[in-house]
Amino acid sequence: RINGDRLWASLMELAQIGATAKGGVKRLALSDLDKQGRDLVVSWGKQAGMTVAVDKIGNVFMHRAGRNAALPPVMSGSHIDTQPTGGKFDGNYGVLAALEVVRTLNDHQIQTEAPIEVAFWTNEEGSRFVPVMMGSGVFCGAFTLEHAYAAKDIDGKTVADELARIGYLGTEEPGQHPIGAYFEAHIEQGPVLEDADKVIGVVPGVLGLSWYDCVVTGMEAHAGPTPMGLRKDALQVATHIMQEVVNIGNRYPPYGRGTVGMVQVFPNSRNVIPGEVKFSIDLRNVSSELLDTMHNEILAFVDSSSQSSGLKISIERVSYFPPCPFHPECVDAVRKATAELGYSTMDVVSGAGHDAIYAARLAPSGMIFVPCKDGISHNEIEDAKAEHLSAGCNVLLHAMLERAQP
Amino acid sequence: RINGDRLWASLMELAQIGATAKGGVKRLALSDLDKQGRDLVVSWGKQAGMTVAVDKIGNVFMHRAGRNAALPPVMSGSHIDTQPTGGKFDGNYGVLAALEVVRTLNDHQIQTEAPIEVAFWTNEEGSRFVPVMMGSGVFCGAFTLEHAYAAKDIDGKTVADELARIGYLGTEEPGQHPIGAYFEAHIEQGPVLEDADKVIGVVPGVLGLSWYDCVVTGMEAHAGPTPMGLRKDALQVATHIMQEVVNIGNRYPPYGRGTVGMVQVFPNSRNVIPGEVKFSIDLRNVSSELLDTMHNEILAFVDSSSQSSGLKISIERVSYFPPCPFHPECVDAVRKATAELGYSTMDVVSGAGHDAIYAARLAPSGMIFVPCKDGISHNEIEDAKAEHLSAGCNVLLHAMLERAQP
Ligand SMILES: NC(=O)NCCC(=O)O
Ligand SMILES: NC(=O)NCCC(=O)O
Repeated sequence: RINGDRLWASLMELAQIGATAKGGVKRLALSDLDKQGRDLVVSWGKQAGMTVAVDKIGNVFMHRAGRNAALPPVMSGSHIDTQPTGGKFDGNYGVLAALEVVRTLNDHQIQTEAPIEVAFWTNEEGSRFVPVMMGSGVFCGAFTLEHAYAAKDIDGKTVADELARIGYLGTEEPGQHPIGAYFEAHIEQGPVLEDADKVIGVVPGVLGLSWYDCVVTGMEAHAGPTPMGLRKDALQVATHIMQEVVNIGNRYPPYGRGTVGMVQVFPNSRNVIPGEVKFSIDLRNVSSELLDTMHNEILAFVDSSSQSSGLKISIERVSYFPPCPFHPECVDAVRKATAELGYSTMDVVSGAGHDAIYAARLAPSGMIFVPCKDGISHNEIEDAKAEHLSAGCNVLLHAMLERAQP
Repeated sequence: RINGDRLWASLMELAQIGATAKGGVKRLALSDLDKQGRDLVVSWGKQAGMTVAVDKIGNVFMHRAGRNAALPPVMSGSHIDTQPTGGKFDGNYGVLAALEVVRTLNDHQIQTEAPIEVAFWTNEEGSRFVPVMMGSGVFCGAFTLEHAYAAKDIDGKTVADELARIGYLGTEEPGQHPIGAYFEAHIEQGPVLEDADKVIGVVPGVLGLSWYDCVVTGMEAHAGPTPMGLRKDALQVATHIMQEVVNIGNRYPPYGRGTVGMVQVFPNSRNVIPGEVKFSIDLRNVSSELLDTMHNEILAFVDSSSQSSGLKISIERVSYFPPCPFHPECVDAVRKATAELGYSTMDVVSGAGHDAIYAARLAPSGMIFVPCKDGISHNEIEDAKAEHLSAGCNVLLHAMLERAQP
């Protein structure tokens, strides 16, 4: 069994870096705070006897040797970057749970056949730089290193420059690092486990995701003298598309999702009719067919909005991953460990993307969910119970040991 | 007849102070550039033989004596502060047209019975400090000097401090300065005159205005794992209100206006369901009854949106002035002058607020509009034709002479 108090203490210590007044964490990818968080986790890894490798996109792999150095490591991890109004557990739990597994193996002087690795991936959140899940995406070849390097934040700073600045521009070629199997423990970030009063979610797979940038171009003009009939009000056209995004999500239950999370209005002055509105669209579903249907519907709606309004509207897909079923052997390892340990459990499809979906392209992968309070995440009030976090970490320990052969 | 070339040359010279790369002007109220602009206009006033008075809110009155010193002056003016992305003509034209009237009277050695005054009012635009039309508003008692003094820009600098800093904290009590009649020449800032191919707009009055801040509070949550039915999406509720603002504007033609110009989404992240949306509402119409109806309709809509969505929605009125019909004698003076001079003309109700609406509370007032290119204003590409600016200035000369009895 893992040490739940130690896991909790490490979570709380890491959460102090970027702590917000409302009890959350703001530690954006590749910021000074991200550097501080990375340095702390790396120092813990070294204290636990692990060697550290960093690749060219800043992914960090901490290595605990096995009896057989020729075997690819059984890896577990997640991310430590957060949303602008993020919580203490999203991502951080997966990294520190994996670290706690290693600390527990050390406590009991257990040597495994295969090496064990603790990973944290760069810029999972995608808040500061798109694409989201950048580090694991580059690692598995979903997009190129050059594409990721060129990504800019709103101040125009690039990923390449920021990686170098914080000292995490490593030398390993992404994807060259071997993986035997990958597990990721994570808070559910949704209400399903809590509603059903279960402790462990076995995750059969992850919803596919399609992200877009949409820009409506009208003509800015003075709000007083410009008659209603002569306006080209970009915001009014945009609001209809924003509503259709939600309609599309509603049209394909139970896994359809449609969200507009980000809006920018130009020039954003009280008495100026908006000349340009830029906003994000997030569509998700459980099968490629349904996600494709939703994709076609939003494109058709944008097209007809442009024709009926006479305004120019551009829509560009900026991120995409298909629905991802996890490897049956890893899913079974989680299910078996949960049963052995006697935790209440159910299957929960993940609505959020995780680094595990990209790891799954290179190695058998699986995930373990634990409940979070009111299903709330990407919010400073995100919360989880220490006993649930311990339970998930115990399941992780057992599932990893099964794959790494103690 | 006034000297159109001299008027144009003065406009272009003043426009160099704060000139932007795109051909516009950025000369924010009470900035160093505003001081330079004020100093230049005051030096021109003195060269034209006028004496200068400044009041406690920085309004400047330049005085040309009449035969009868006991008569209140016939005044004309506007403002020289600009929007952050402003043009060369908004406000500046009204001040320099009034100066050109005095220069023309000097050229022809015309003495008037009543004195003539050229005024410019502090912070008409309201971009750096709210409320808008601050100088004329304090002057007529629409709000207090203390309220205006306390207004802060985004850096926390106050109106009182900035007035003192640029040397325009005068000694005259605002509102004590006598006015016999007030005229203001201005670009239309809308497309009506250009569309109808007319040179002079006779302005019967100004639309009343009601400004609001509206805040919808939902619950931010992760866009992936949160099922559609369990969301409290603040943006989706807000978009319906934003559409209703425009519907209300459309419902009361021809003068109804409904605009949402400013939107802030919180936390404004692509995969977070918005937890809070704040936006501005701008409603206008020609009669108090219609504006009150529109006011009641938006309040009722917000109320029913809150009830049907279960989300908290606050709406607060942050600015208001009632519709302002100008004085029949001043409107007639403009109409008569236009007819005498043979310019094509039509009536144009002003959709934008002007200093004249506050002057109108203390003295008979009227306005003269000239066309601006494509009806565009509050934009660096704002443009107007020299011949139209001359025509408006000639109308101003004749209307002022009628009131001041040559
Ligand atoms: N877990 C998580 O927040 N991933 C980011 C990508 C997504 O929005 O699903
Ligand atoms: N003329 C002008 O832009 N006034 C500002 C107040 C308004 O929006 O009407």
